[in-house]
Amino acid sequence: MSTIPITVVVGAGLMGASVGLALRRAGVDVHLEDLDPLHAQAAESLGAGTTRAPRSPDAIGLVVVAVPPRLLGPAVCEALDAWPQAVVTDIGSVKVPVLEAARTRGTDLARYVGSHPMAGSERSGPWAAAADLFDGRAWAVTPHETSAPAAVGVVRGLARDCGASVVELSPVEHDAAVARVSHLPHLMSVLAAGALVDAPPQHLELAGQGLRDVIRIAGGDPSLWAEIVTANAEQISLLLHDVRDRVDELLSGVRDDPGTLSVALRRGVDGTRRVPGKHGTPAPDYTVVYVAVPDRPGELARLFADAGQSGVNIEDLRIDHDPARPVGLVEVVVAQRSAATLVSSLSDRGWSVNQ
Amino acid sequence: MSTIPITVVVGAGLMGASVGLALRRAGVDVHLEDLDPLHAQAAESLGAGTTRAPRSPDAIGLVVVAVPPRLLGPAVCEALDAWPQAVVTDIGSVKVPVLEAARTRGTDLARYVGSHPMAGSERSGPWAAAADLFDGRAWAVTPHETSAPAAVGVVRGLARDCGASVVELSPVEHDAAVARVSHLPHLMSVLAAGALVDAPPQHLELAGQGLRDVIRIAGGDPSLWAEIVTANAEQISLLLHDVRDRVDELLSGVRDDPGTLSVALRRGVDGTRRVPGKHGTPAPDYTVVYVAVPDRPGELARLFADAGQSGVNIEDLRIDHDPARPVGLVEVVVAQRSAATLVSSLSDRGWSVNQ
Repeated sequence: MSTIPITVVVGAGLMGASVGLALRRAGVDVHLEDLDPLHAQAAESLGAGTTRAPRSPDAIGLVVVAVPPRLLGPAVCEALDAWPQAVVTDIGSVKVPVLEAARTRGTDLARYVGSHPMAGSERSGPWAAAADLFDGRAWAVTPHETSAPAAVGVVRGLARDCGASVVELSPVEHDAAVARVSHLPHLMSVLAAGALVDAPPQHLELAGQGLRDVIRIAGGDPSLWAEIVTANAEQISLLLHDVRDRVDELLSGVRDDPGTLSVALRRGVDGTRRVPGKHGTPAPDYTVVYVAVPDRPGELARLFADAGQSGVNIEDLRIDHDPARPVGLVEVVVAQRSAATLVSSLSDRGWSVNQ
Repeated sequence: MSTIPITVVVGAGLMGASVGLALRRAGVDVHLEDLDPLHAQAAESLGAGTTRAPRSPDAIGLVVVAVPPRLLGPAVCEALDAWPQAVVTDIGSVKVPVLEAARTRGTDLARYVGSHPMAGSERSGPWAAAADLFDGRAWAVTPHETSAPAAVGVVRGLARDCGASVVELSPVEHDAAVARVSHLPHLMSVLAAGALVDAPPQHLELAGQGLRDVIRIAGGDPSLWAEIVTANAEQISLLLHDVRDRVDELLSGVRDDPGTLSVALRRGVDGTRRVPGKHGTPAPDYTVVYVAVPDRPGELARLFADAGQSGVNIEDLRIDHDPARPVGLVEVVVAQRSAATLVSSLSDRGWSVNQ
């Protein structure tokens, strides 16, 4: 059972309507507000809450502000004024500017705690909302110096009730983090997609899954993203300057410096390895499992077949070709977390294995 | 039944082994060769063909060369010499350098037709191979001026037997196309992934699906990609120069030119819209379906519920608020190909609809 009190969601777009759906799924009473009655009604018809006004402002325990970035600061202050008992959070993509905008109005911000679910869609509007949008995703909770601890607890509960995992960090840390893990990747996706605008149609017939994955998020609402990127300009500029240097590096590498090029590409591989697994599992670390293979025809094939049976992904394989020995040592590279499975599976099948 | 003759696959890595698996699935006899016997045996144990040598060189009708890029030219010529009756293709990522390298050796290239399946994996080695790697993907077939028409037919058949759709274009056109739809996106993915190398671990906990999609292909083998990119240096340099200009544009846009920024982001959206659908279906074109909605409470909610029942994705929705009229006109934006479904579904439910 949810511990979240009666909630108002301000802004019934993709994100607000999805929060409404997720909270309704958790049994929370949700009231929906939007300047555009069409959005609020669409969200209501999908089951994200009611468009009826709450009976009393004092009955509201939580307000989730989900309006466009440039309106967040004022909307947070208005929510603090309108619902005097409520904890107020916003779910905008950049946290420092919201806090600064709210502070300039002189409102007491003890009941305000910023947050940011790391989920979204290249589609927009309440009709693209989904109750499971946040399932298994990270949800940043970003208390400031004067946030009341009880308020932080309520916002953490919101994230958990929506199916997400809480990551708590300061507004400044948050903005630096999303510049790197969300905003810069968005811009790289936009550059890759933008280069397609001038392509002859036949060239586009060669599009594969790799391209589709890289450019998917570039399809996101450009006016929303212009607001997000502008709000986080300082952090993004730092990263973009570095990108410009690395484009120059690629340009000279492609032409006549394979060494530099390899280092740049290796850096990309290293970056992908640092990202945690889908549900917060750590990024795969690789390890080697050693298998003794008798030097007889068919033994290697039998090893491959048995390794296949274990269901473990083999990342790489090396063999020690020592003609003087009757037994060769095969090094099987697998993810750390899969090593034990492979070892026991191969041992059960009679192989001499160690890690 | 396949029309493909007995085939030799030279190079049993991810791509060669996957071709072997796909051809075996189509009932073709496949012989596997690799300088590294471990690779050939791994591919054989997975069912990609046999490592036994063919009975006679003259029995071989098709050779698929799937060795690393820098070795392709010589390997194609050696294959033409070794299998005098065979059509020879390579499945490398860049076509002009292979053709040029083969030409410098003075071999008659009538039996050679380049090709390139638009599929792959960020993993490598025969242990990552899959029979369905090419299903529904594009496969470029790139005849040169002296390719024999019959040889082109055999290579087209290879692509179809592996489950792919043939896209025929010249080697020069091909290399320009893949620079844009494959190599540049790879480099943008590398830049986004590379920026993660310096991130504090807690920042990476905010990684979401968008980031994972953008950086997935950056995990590909860096030495292979260094060869690919170097081989297509001229085309890629042209695009990278443009990227550098656009990074400068983003830098100034982020700081103090929201207009420029919006144009840049909109260009990304336009690029995503140009990519054909997954199985060669055209890129979605949007259209508007008009629905008359009586000005009574609950009617809009009923419309949303009914539209939801149709299973059609609503991309956007606009309403004409004319207080003087008892009926409002709602504009529902959907993909062109879904419009008829929505129209008939809403009509069946009693709505007044037109397109």
